[in-house]
Amino acid sequence: MSDTVHMSLDEVRALSTEVLIANGMSEANAMVIADVVTQAEADGTHSHGLFRVPGYVTSMRSGRMDGKAVPEVTEKSPGLVAVDSKNGFSPPAIMAGKPLAIEKAKSQGIAALGLRNNGNLNALWWEAEHFGDAGLICLTMSTSQSFVAPWGGNKALFGTDPIAFACPRAGKPPMVFDYATSASARGEIQVAAREGHSIPKGWALDKDGNDTTDPAAALEGVQLPFGGHKGNAIMIMVELLSAGLTGGNFCFEAQEQVDAFGGHDAGPSNAGQIFILIDPKGFHETFLDRVEGLFGKILAQEGTRIPGDRRYANRARSATDGIECQAALHQQILDMRDG
Amino acid sequence: MSDTVHMSLDEVRALSTEVLIANGMSEANAMVIADVVTQAEADGTHSHGLFRVPGYVTSMRSGRMDGKAVPEVTEKSPGLVAVDSKNGFSPPAIMAGKPLAIEKAKSQGIAALGLRNNGNLNALWWEAEHFGDAGLICLTMSTSQSFVAPWGGNKALFGTDPIAFACPRAGKPPMVFDYATSASARGEIQVAAREGHSIPKGWALDKDGNDTTDPAAALEGVQLPFGGHKGNAIMIMVELLSAGLTGGNFCFEAQEQVDAFGGHDAGPSNAGQIFILIDPKGFHETFLDRVEGLFGKILAQEGTRIPGDRRYANRARSATDGIECQAALHQQILDMRDG
Repeated sequence: MSDTVHMSLDEVRALSTEVLIANGMSEANAMVIADVVTQAEADGTHSHGLFRVPGYVTSMRSGRMDGKAVPEVTEKSPGLVAVDSKNGFSPPAIMAGKPLAIEKAKSQGIAALGLRNNGNLNALWWEAEHFGDAGLICLTMSTSQSFVAPWGGNKALFGTDPIAFACPRAGKPPMVFDYATSASARGEIQVAAREGHSIPKGWALDKDGNDTTDPAAALEGVQLPFGGHKGNAIMIMVELLSAGLTGGNFCFEAQEQVDAFGGHDAGPSNAGQIFILIDPKGFHETFLDRVEGLFGKILAQEGTRIPGDRRYANRARSATDGIECQAALHQQILDMRDG
Repeated sequence: MSDTVHMSLDEVRALSTEVLIANGMSEANAMVIADVVTQAEADGTHSHGLFRVPGYVTSMRSGRMDGKAVPEVTEKSPGLVAVDSKNGFSPPAIMAGKPLAIEKAKSQGIAALGLRNNGNLNALWWEAEHFGDAGLICLTMSTSQSFVAPWGGNKALFGTDPIAFACPRAGKPPMVFDYATSASARGEIQVAAREGHSIPKGWALDKDGNDTTDPAAALEGVQLPFGGHKGNAIMIMVELLSAGLTGGNFCFEAQEQVDAFGGHDAGPSNAGQIFILIDPKGFHETFLDRVEGLFGKILAQEGTRIPGDRRYANRARSATDGIECQAALHQQILDMRDG
C-alpha cells in the first residue's frame, strides 16, 4: 500500500462532507466545514485540511462540540453584528453573520462582526478571504486556549492568538495574511521534536522559565510572543478585541474551563472572534489602484513576496493536480465515516 | 552653567506655546502641539517632547509645514470621518475630527477617522489616549517616510509605520501601547552609533543588503520589520490602512516627494493616518470588568507589566517633580522664540 492516497479536490470535499454528516453534523454545517477542509488542502495548509477531520469527529462524538448548532445572529447597533456560535464550529457561525455584516460595512463604511461561544479555532485566512472577495478590507482575530506566556512571565496565559487581514485587489483574489502572534505555531515545535532538531531561541521557555532551544523542553514549558514586547502588546490587543469585546472567552478562561472538564476533548472552550470590516471606497475611489502601486514597489525588490501568494500558487496547481493524503489518515477518515 | 535646566510642566507648556506662536503657528494649533510636547516630557518619552520643538520651528520657517493650517472635516458616511490636515501638524487635525468620530463610534458601535495630508508623524499614544479617555477602544496607525526594507528585500520602502492601541479601564487611565513596527526606532540605532556599541542582529541590513550589527553600517543601509515576516505583514497592513485607505501618502510616495523637494525639511510629506474606534459596550456591558480580569492574570506573573504603565508612573512623578531639559536645547528654543 502506498504511503499516500491521491485525491481530487472534489473527492476531498465529498469525503469530508460524508464523514461529518455521518458523525452528527447538520448538512448545512458540513458543507461549510468541508469547504474549509477542501480549500486548506488546495492551498497546501494541511494543518487545517484532512488532518483536522478526525479531531472534528472526536469532538462531536464526545459531545464537546455541537455539529448541529444553529448560530444566532443579532443586530447590536448600526455598525455591530453579534453571533452566538452556540458551541458549534466557527465557520458556519461566521457565514451566518456574514450577509448582515457585509451590508452594514457597505452602508456604514465600517462594521464589526463579533462571535462568542465558538467551539473551535478555524483557519482565519479562509474567513478573511470571504470578506475580501466581497470587496471589503477585513481584519480578524481569535482566541483559543493558553500556550503562550506574557512578555516577562513564564506561565501559559495567551493562546496562539492568530490575526488575519484581507485586502481586495483589482482582478485578483484578495491579499490575505494569517499568522499566530506566538513566535511559532505549536505544530512547528512538535515537528522539531519529532525530527530531532533544535528550535530558535525566542520561541519558548522550559518549565523552569529559562530560554530553551530543545523542542521537548519547550513543549513542557511555554511558548513566547513573536517579536518580543511588541508582539506581546499585539497579543493583548487580540485577547481584548476577540474575547473581551465580543463576550467570548479569553484564552486563560477557555483553558480553565477545558481543564475543569478534564482535558482538551472533554468540554467546550467558548472562544471569541472579531471581524473589523471596512469599505475600501469609503474615503476615496482609487484604493484598488493604490494597492497595486504599493505591491508593485514591494515586488520590484528581489526576494520579496506578497503575503498569501504561495497559497494561491498551490491552489492553482491543486485544481488540476489534486492533492496527496497520508494513507493512514485517509483510512482513519474512511473508518470514521463507516463505523 | 548646569547641563540641564529644571522645568515645571507648566513652564514646558508655556515655552512650547510661545516658541510655536512666535514662529507662525496659530494659537489654536500651538495649544494642541504644546500639549503633546508637555505630555511627552511628563511621560518621559522625550523624543516627542522639547527635543522635537526646533524641528517644528524649522519646518514652519522653511515653509514645509503650515502652522496656521485649518483642518477640513468631512462626514463620508454614517461610520467614516475624513480630515484633510492641509499640510499642518497632525494633532490639531485629529482634534478637529475627534468630536464627530466619537459621536459616530458611540451611535454606530464602530467608526473610523481617516487623515490625509498630515505634515508630521506625532506620538500615537497621545492621540490614542484621547479616544481611550472618551471611553472608546482605539486602534491607530500612521505612515511617515521610507526607512525599512520589506521582508526579503534590501531597499527602504516602508516607514517605521507605528501602531497604537488604547483600551479604556474602569477608574484608571486607558491602557495604551504605541510602537514602531520596524525592529527598532531609528533613534535607537543613532544612539548606538554615538555610544559606540553594536546593535542586535535583525534590526538592519548594511548598504549591500547583508545583516549587520554595526550601527553606522545600519544607518547607511536599511532597517528591518520587527518580528520577521509577521511584522512585515503588519507593516503592509499599516501602509494599506493609514495611507491606501485614507488617501494619504504611502511611505515610499512621501519619500519620493520629499526627495524631489531636496530633503526632509524641504517639502511636504502628506502622510496618512487611520483611527478605528469601537464602543466597548457595543456587544455587552461587562467589558471593563473583563479587562481587569485579564490584566490581573498578566500581573499575577512576576516580571510582567501592562503596556504604558511606565509612562503613567513617569507622569505621576513629573507632575510634582517637573522635568530636566538639556541646557543647550533649552537655550536653542529660547533663541528660536526670541529671534
